[in-house]
Amino acid sequence: MSISVFEHPVLRGLFGQDEIASLFSFAEDLRLMLEYEAGLVLAKGDAGLLPPASAERIAAICRDFQPDIERLKADTTRDGVVIPGLVGQLRNAVGGSGAEYVHTGATSQDVVDTAMALRLARAGALFHDRLGELDKALDRLVGDFGQNPIKARTRMQAAQAMPASNRLESWRGIVNANTERLSAWLQQMPVLSFGGAIGALDALGEQGPEVKGHLARHLGCKVTGNWHSNRHLFVDFANICSAISGSLGKIGQDIALMAQNEIDEIALAGAGGSSAMAHKRNPVAAEILVSLARFNATQVSGMHHALVHEQERSGSAWSLEWMLLPPMTACAAASLDTARRVLGDVERIGKR
Amino acid sequence: MSISVFEHPVLRGLFGQDEIASLFSFAEDLRLMLEYEAGLVLAKGDAGLLPPASAERIAAICRDFQPDIERLKADTTRDGVVIPGLVGQLRNAVGGSGAEYVHTGATSQDVVDTAMALRLARAGALFHDRLGELDKALDRLVGDFGQNPIKARTRMQAAQAMPASNRLESWRGIVNANTERLSAWLQQMPVLSFGGAIGALDALGEQGPEVKGHLARHLGCKVTGNWHSNRHLFVDFANICSAISGSLGKIGQDIALMAQNEIDEIALAGAGGSSAMAHKRNPVAAEILVSLARFNATQVSGMHHALVHEQERSGSAWSLEWMLLPPMTACAAASLDTARRVLGDVERIGKR
Amino acid sequence: MSISVFEHPVLRGLFGQDEIASLFSFAEDLRLMLEYEAGLVLAKGDAGLLPPASAERIAAICRDFQPDIERLKADTTRDGVVIPGLVGQLRNAVGGSGAEYVHTGATSQDVVDTAMALRLARAGALFHDRLGELDKALDRLVGDFGQNPIKARTRMQAAQAMPASNRLESWRGIVNANTERLSAWLQQMPVLSFGGAIGALDALGEQGPEVKGHLARHLGCKVTGNWHSNRHLFVDFANICSAISGSLGKIGQDIALMAQNEIDEIALAGAGGSSAMAHKRNPVAAEILVSLARFNATQVSGMHHALVHEQERSGSAWSLEWMLLPPMTACAAASLDTARRVLGDVERIGKR
Amino acid sequence: MSISVFEHPVLRGLFGQDEIASLFSFAEDLRLMLEYEAGLVLAKGDAGLLPPASAERIAAICRDFQPDIERLKADTTRDGVVIPGLVGQLRNAVGGSGAEYVHTGATSQDVVDTAMALRLARAGALFHDRLGELDKALDRLVGDFGQNPIKARTRMQAAQAMPASNRLESWRGIVNANTERLSAWLQQMPVLSFGGAIGALDALGEQGPEVKGHLARHLGCKVTGNWHSNRHLFVDFANICSAISGSLGKIGQDIALMAQNEIDEIALAGAGGSSAMAHKRNPVAAEILVSLARFNATQVSGMHHALVHEQERSGSAWSLEWMLLPPMTACAAASLDTARRVLGDVERIGKR
Repeated sequence: MSISVFEHPVLRGLFGQDEIASLFSFAEDLRLMLEYEAGLVLAKGDAGLLPPASAERIAAICRDFQPDIERLKADTTRDGVVIPGLVGQLRNAVGGSGAEYVHTGATSQDVVDTAMALRLARAGALFHDRLGELDKALDRLVGDFGQNPIKARTRMQAAQAMPASNRLESWRGIVNANTERLSAWLQQMPVLSFGGAIGALDALGEQGPEVKGHLARHLGCKVTGNWHSNRHLFVDFANICSAISGSLGKIGQDIALMAQNEIDEIALAGAGGSSAMAHKRNPVAAEILVSLARFNATQVSGMHHALVHEQERSGSAWSLEWMLLPPMTACAAASLDTARRVLGDVERIGKR
Repeated sequence: MSISVFEHPVLRGLFGQDEIASLFSFAEDLRLMLEYEAGLVLAKGDAGLLPPASAERIAAICRDFQPDIERLKADTTRDGVVIPGLVGQLRNAVGGSGAEYVHTGATSQDVVDTAMALRLARAGALFHDRLGELDKALDRLVGDFGQNPIKARTRMQAAQAMPASNRLESWRGIVNANTERLSAWLQQMPVLSFGGAIGALDALGEQGPEVKGHLARHLGCKVTGNWHSNRHLFVDFANICSAISGSLGKIGQDIALMAQNEIDEIALAGAGGSSAMAHKRNPVAAEILVSLARFNATQVSGMHHALVHEQERSGSAWSLEWMLLPPMTACAAASLDTARRVLGDVERIGKR
Repeated sequence: MSISVFEHPVLRGLFGQDEIASLFSFAEDLRLMLEYEAGLVLAKGDAGLLPPASAERIAAICRDFQPDIERLKADTTRDGVVIPGLVGQLRNAVGGSGAEYVHTGATSQDVVDTAMALRLARAGALFHDRLGELDKALDRLVGDFGQNPIKARTRMQAAQAMPASNRLESWRGIVNANTERLSAWLQQMPVLSFGGAIGALDALGEQGPEVKGHLARHLGCKVTGNWHSNRHLFVDFANICSAISGSLGKIGQDIALMAQNEIDEIALAGAGGSSAMAHKRNPVAAEILVSLARFNATQVSGMHHALVHEQERSGSAWSLEWMLLPPMTACAAASLDTARRVLGDVERIGKR
Repeated sequence: MSISVFEHPVLRGLFGQDEIASLFSFAEDLRLMLEYEAGLVLAKGDAGLLPPASAERIAAICRDFQPDIERLKADTTRDGVVIPGLVGQLRNAVGGSGAEYVHTGATSQDVVDTAMALRLARAGALFHDRLGELDKALDRLVGDFGQNPIKARTRMQAAQAMPASNRLESWRGIVNANTERLSAWLQQMPVLSFGGAIGALDALGEQGPEVKGHLARHLGCKVTGNWHSNRHLFVDFANICSAISGSLGKIGQDIALMAQNEIDEIALAGAGGSSAMAHKRNPVAAEILVSLARFNATQVSGMHHALVHEQERSGSAWSLEWMLLPPMTACAAASLDTARRVLGDVERIGKR
């Protein structure tokens, strides 16, 4: 399959990231959704809505459940979301009077959003690590080449000589600005969604909040108010993905400009070959950083449009998020990995 | 894999299109790139640059070639494009003095762009057929329900009664406006790219234009000037994809508004169920049409940014196209198929 | 005022265009809206709905009408569109039984859209002329410098030497591709809107089409079906504006890259000075071409979102067009003027 | 002038905001730029680079300076930025040996960015106040109508009855999420830019940091590292502007849906009239909220593209910010004001 460059059998060397592909695999999504359903039954057990042993038994069935994927696909096409079909199959598997404890009190969006929040939080943690690696890669470059003179350039014109460390430190500042924003976001994540049909957490009566607390604990999530139509945390993540790609796109653009033959202020191992000109050494990874930046800068707009999330829950704005968030995450991850690679490939900064 | 909703094992019932997945499969891409290389050798044979029998022999090797995919992926990661690695493997397979006839005179972008142009033209032809089907689906609706009164609505307020045919004919006009634009585009497509390293068609000397003509014939392509940095035809296609999705998003939005309980101006078979509210009949397909419209309206911006295609050939702007064109095509195809489905599901327009 | 760079007292030297400022001045908008109302009364006279002399008298009042702007602003704030307030004032001015002939049969959107169509068509004609001037400017450069060698560059790396004419002709191809698209669009423009309250052209009974024909003639417009919710021609224009800016952004980017000190493949008169570095010669106009390209590539997305134009007439999608079309037009005009200026400033292409 | 709806003589009742127009007037921009130049001379005096009395004298000249606007416009067109021309005129006005103290040590971008930062911070403070007003407006609605039943709606279908307060509180959560993000941003603002030609703060030797501290104090700015190419704080602001407009667009969309005739879950004073249908009561302000949301969701993409800010200072990415930030600010302000107005116009929520 290869509509997406992030999953293309050949191009994924340029764009793909195995960790992100795993994170957004349906297997992982399914695992988390079933974990939610299991956690919800356990939470009801904790709150005394059913005997703990029954809750354990049903939760185990949830966790091990392997749905009929073709039926799930057909049901999803009709329902617009995977949960009604999945819960139907799951309740059949649980059977008897236990089936009523499955999912009851939640709604599709609770499960899907929580599974997304859990994955975005893990992607964010990965980004955090990778930003730290870039900081270290810049340490190396400052140490090895920081004293070499390069030309400061403004408005595409040579301004005056400066040590390479000036530019490297400006890169570092731009990279680390993302770390700050990401850390603030991570502190609020992952967040549980558990509002039920209309977000009012009313199906379980007075025990709703207690069940919610237990469910959050089982899933390792934070508790907050209902956010069915409050998409700020997802938009914040999109902003961060795009800011990461944009920041590293700036570095990529700088490197591609430094690598121009007549300017030659950088030497890169692993530059790309041409099918028509054997002598060429193309700064491929640097160029890809620019492509990734422009990709995410394009996508981020769609996530802002998805803020217009009508009424209690929107089908169309919500589905739009599914179209945008995984590629944006994959793109930011690719930016980080490509930047690590290109900084690692630097053999020289400054004139020969 | 499921970063992309268009290739998601479960969500592709909502978003995916088998024809488009085939079109953008790497198998098909590879087949077309090898067809290009085969055609180029044949064209050189036609022009007398090598004996026809040799050309046939080499072309057959090209067509049947099965590359080492892992090596191809590694080389592509380094080179930023699949062709240098593929041509290297292919020349090895041809061996001997014949190898020099493979690819020589072309550049990576020629092959990749032509393979993209061929696929976009086929997608465009598919769109053309599907737009025609929508026109017919509207015929049925006009015939069955056109005389039923519905409320004309402006600025979200009831204006006055009108026959449903008024709205249906306005939908038809919006649908068919795409057919016109698409037809004009299809007349220029598919277009051959054959400019060589710097677009000057100079590697084959005076025989360049003749070889180009033969190559175009072998591939069923039209001949035009060098378009390595002239991306108008691809941007036009992106505009059309987005206009199709946008037009059908308008219809989807209208249907979702008509399907509101209190308004009840449409009845749809196959409406979606809810995991929390058994009574609900959600207009899922109509909502997805809106999501698809906003997705493509978002993406089209990136293709316009890719017009800033520096110098003779840009790595970054070009790679950005690869990220955007296949999902935009898949999205437009999904819009067309979903619209066909939702119009087919209409059981009533006008009041009960 | 200076929220908009296109109207900024100082920055408009970089971004502003007097012709476009005039075109989108409220004075001109008002003139065209009154011209529409005058033409409609005359058309009714032509169709025998009122005596020709009365029609002439009322039309003259319409044309000379000077509304109370403060009241108009207050009414517009309430109504979301200028026409209800304007027509109210105008009917008062006409007075008596003649007042009923003013505007009746039309709706606000008819007047506003036609006034926009007339202005966009004039902007398009201006673009057409300016594209022709760029073609001539490229003639001069080909004549003066076409034989000078420059480096062909691909993926930001020097590829091989070529005559400057190669690049100049590729620029010309990109410029002229816009002329083709614009010409096709101009042939459909300007188009009359005259559908009345719900687009059905029903308020004037059987005489509607006849009045429509006369009105089109008075305004110099083409006749087409109702397009209240069919926004393709406006989106096409946005696509063209962005393609123009994008094409010229490519040229600007190329020039900025050629002007780099070490590369020095172009010399420009009129380069910009720095407040901190007296020696600098910044390729300001070339940079602005890139800014303008990215601006319009950003805006075009919004116009595609505006295709989701619900029901018979949308308030929100329609108002969005007002926010986007004038700046996009101004931006494309600035691109054309800036490109003319920078091509005129070229003192040398190729090495010193 | 009326390319921009935000400055249109008639439409600015719908889109315009006097406070924002003042903030982005050239008069205010000029005042702040001159304040910067005055502050810089004073800061040099504080650091002992010139006698305090001389510094006071020159600073006074700076503050009172009235440039020749036509010359400034011409110089700006050449230089791409207002400062070289302005400083030239200013130095002439100061004359003699004092002239060398004007601007020296700073660069154009320092002055322009600081003046922008000061204005964005003031806009942010205005937004903060207005978000607080919305919170109070929601108090009134909850108090007056919170117990009225309305239908909860999901995926555009009626779900179940709920008290209106549920929806109002979800609106409040969405509104207040912006307040949090804005508060965090305001704590870092306004930030001083003072890096000199290449951002290294080197022109004043060892006294650079001391002068920077004094300058920040004079301007009421915070001190940070050089941010010539680090555009995160401006992109953050753009994100916030768009999130505000998007959040209020969600409320606008909800209100427009509630105001549909058959649904009638809200009554609004001040609804708009139609030129063709006297009975209509259009929810104009609610629709405009949706338009504003989509406008800013479109623009935000361009600010993310501007992160690709090449080398020490970019002309093209920087100029793009000037094109986008003022309209985005104006749009967010209009969203806030329009939301206040529409919430104030609510005469009833829930069924009649």
